[in-house]
Amino acid sequence: MTHKHGGDIYTYSGVRDFSANINFCGMPESVRDAAIRAVDLSVHYPDPDCRALRQTLADYENDGCHMTEIRPEHIICGNGAAELMFALVGAYFPQQALLAVPSFYEYEQALDAFGCAICRYEMKAEEGFALGEDFLKTLLRFAEKMDQLPGSDRKGLQQISIPEKEGTARAGARGMVILGSPNNPTGRLIETDILHTLIEVCAKRRLLLVLDESFLDFLSEEDRIRTFSGVCVLPKTPQVFVIRSFTKIYALPGLRFGYGLCSDRQLLEGMRRLLQPWNVSLVAQEAANAAAHEREFARESAQQVAVNREQMAAALKGAGYEVFPSNTNFLLLRGPENLAEDCLAHGFLIRDCSNFPGLKRTGDGQAYFRVCVRSREENEALLEVMGVR
Amino acid sequence: MTHKHGGDIYTYSGVRDFSANINFCGMPESVRDAAIRAVDLSVHYPDPDCRALRQTLADYENDGCHMTEIRPEHIICGNGAAELMFALVGAYFPQQALLAVPSFYEYEQALDAFGCAICRYEMKAEEGFALGEDFLKTLLRFAEKMDQLPGSDRKGLQQISIPEKEGTARAGARGMVILGSPNNPTGRLIETDILHTLIEVCAKRRLLLVLDESFLDFLSEEDRIRTFSGVCVLPKTPQVFVIRSFTKIYALPGLRFGYGLCSDRQLLEGMRRLLQPWNVSLVAQEAANAAAHEREFARESAQQVAVNREQMAAALKGAGYEVFPSNTNFLLLRGPENLAEDCLAHGFLIRDCSNFPGLKRTGDGQAYFRVCVRSREENEALLEVMGVR
Repeated sequence: MTHKHGGDIYTYSGVRDFSANINFCGMPESVRDAAIRAVDLSVHYPDPDCRALRQTLADYENDGCHMTEIRPEHIICGNGAAELMFALVGAYFPQQALLAVPSFYEYEQALDAFGCAICRYEMKAEEGFALGEDFLKTLLRFAEKMDQLPGSDRKGLQQISIPEKEGTARAGARGMVILGSPNNPTGRLIETDILHTLIEVCAKRRLLLVLDESFLDFLSEEDRIRTFSGVCVLPKTPQVFVIRSFTKIYALPGLRFGYGLCSDRQLLEGMRRLLQPWNVSLVAQEAANAAAHEREFARESAQQVAVNREQMAAALKGAGYEVFPSNTNFLLLRGPENLAEDCLAHGFLIRDCSNFPGLKRTGDGQAYFRVCVRSREENEALLEVMGVR
Repeated sequence: MTHKHGGDIYTYSGVRDFSANINFCGMPESVRDAAIRAVDLSVHYPDPDCRALRQTLADYENDGCHMTEIRPEHIICGNGAAELMFALVGAYFPQQALLAVPSFYEYEQALDAFGCAICRYEMKAEEGFALGEDFLKTLLRFAEKMDQLPGSDRKGLQQISIPEKEGTARAGARGMVILGSPNNPTGRLIETDILHTLIEVCAKRRLLLVLDESFLDFLSEEDRIRTFSGVCVLPKTPQVFVIRSFTKIYALPGLRFGYGLCSDRQLLEGMRRLLQPWNVSLVAQEAANAAAHEREFARESAQQVAVNREQMAAALKGAGYEVFPSNTNFLLLRGPENLAEDCLAHGFLIRDCSNFPGLKRTGDGQAYFRVCVRSREENEALLEVMGVR
């Protein structure tokens, strides 16, 4: 492992961790109980098809979006969302992928692993890292490039390009667009009108739009009303793949569970072929099943997060930090380049974002950092260390 | 999932499961306790590098084999051994692989997923499915074929052939040999002299020898003395990759943990690139750490298994079943083709092996089945249903 991730409490033991973006309310009691009960069941193999769980998740999704009907066949379960990203890239095998950076490091790692070329669109700090009209232009250029690339097979997503036994590895110029909403590490949601256009363009130009909604559950009630999830368009739009994670909202990163949703059955089948049969542990399946009955817990957490986040952002701005707009449970900010070391010296771990493309240090003494929004008391303690008082 | 696996208690709920090959002694208490404690730690991410665990495993291996020195850098941890098989095939990217069938279905699934051609050597029922001189001849022919294949790059294992961004997916004719010892579903160990020769040939001819030792911990004391593990030659032989599983001996299939050992650091690095950072859950890491201190439990289980196995085999033979020699905790046998259905009607799940290459039904009314060796009482109950009394 050469890349540095958030949440590394193993190198820095005993610290207060603001570098991983986990729900500060912790794991719901029902989830903890289910996981513990599952340990005793674990002398058996897990169900490789996650049958009971996928039914529960379909109900959970339909409860969350009244405009759609998700069925268990639309769902693929993973050992965390990150595993699914690798399987998705491997199964879809895009020739090129378009990313809006800064974004989650695993997108690039998965694309690199399968030798896929990466096109990076740099979101701008002066626009608060929002995805706007300018990105749509880039997307159209990307679609055109994909059309023009030699060897392009534009029959759509049906033809999974897993290397054939005797053939070549690459069946054609397949394009993939990966976007986080809200995006990590910026915290910014894709606005409704932009998202609509993105989906339309990708469907029409036959690009696979991967929407990573791992942090969508942290939206405030107001944000939730004025936006929509990719899940809502999914049954009728096989060019959309939505990634969801229970890691963050239900605070179970150590148990590993995430899932993907897509109505392109052949793509899901291709992903299954790249995954071992028992990829989701019995503990994760049982915990996720319990978590899917905790939507109320999620909603309440999200409201608390929103309140704490705005307080924290205001305090940081008041102390001279540049703080970017966030719709989720973390804040991207700009501060003195030795901030992370200073915090660590006081026992607080925050995420230095200098290794994200688009957030590199520029030598002006300032750097980007990401901090998780936690309880009011915890946030106060961190703010004190950061000189906000 | 179209393939039928053992251990499917989800389709057949409430059955007594003899189809999964799990230690009948169950999960050691210390492992169960560690897993339960780990649930409360799981609001944190697991260590992506499994640092503490790999150190423990190195000590565990060195304790098990005094002829070698395994270091943490030789070890890669997986979400079960099956995940590592996929990562290994993806990272080594062999042009062709040689299997001795019947063998574990996931070898073929992993090779298929990456478009690798499979050469099957059929072990013979009349030889008790032992791997002998005849296989060595096949191996030499396979090595020659690999040498002669066009585009072959025979520089050895150093050059990992992950598809390059601009290049082709396949760098050369790389050959892989995958063998289980003891083998699943036959239960048969590779004899010492044959194993020595296999290792020698693979090292000399630069084939990667993958030894799946997932069931080696079930060897009786006598079998253990007259054989050796691939781990013993591993530090000096980068052409050997050993797969180990804690699933079977420590009865934790639901927690998912296995590991691989190899002294080819670049190959391990290539595998890491194909795996998400947090592939081993915190629960699995803590449980495995505890299990690595339970070698005495493993040894005692193995002795009990050996006694129960020989009793069970003798009883089955006495009742007219053809039973094949086994060195581990399951028995391959031949009986009436409706045996599995009959057992299921009485609430006992056994593994119909007709979907293993080399064990297909031949229309003579007989078929192959695999049964796990469990406690004397449980075995008696199964034997009664099988008409052995």
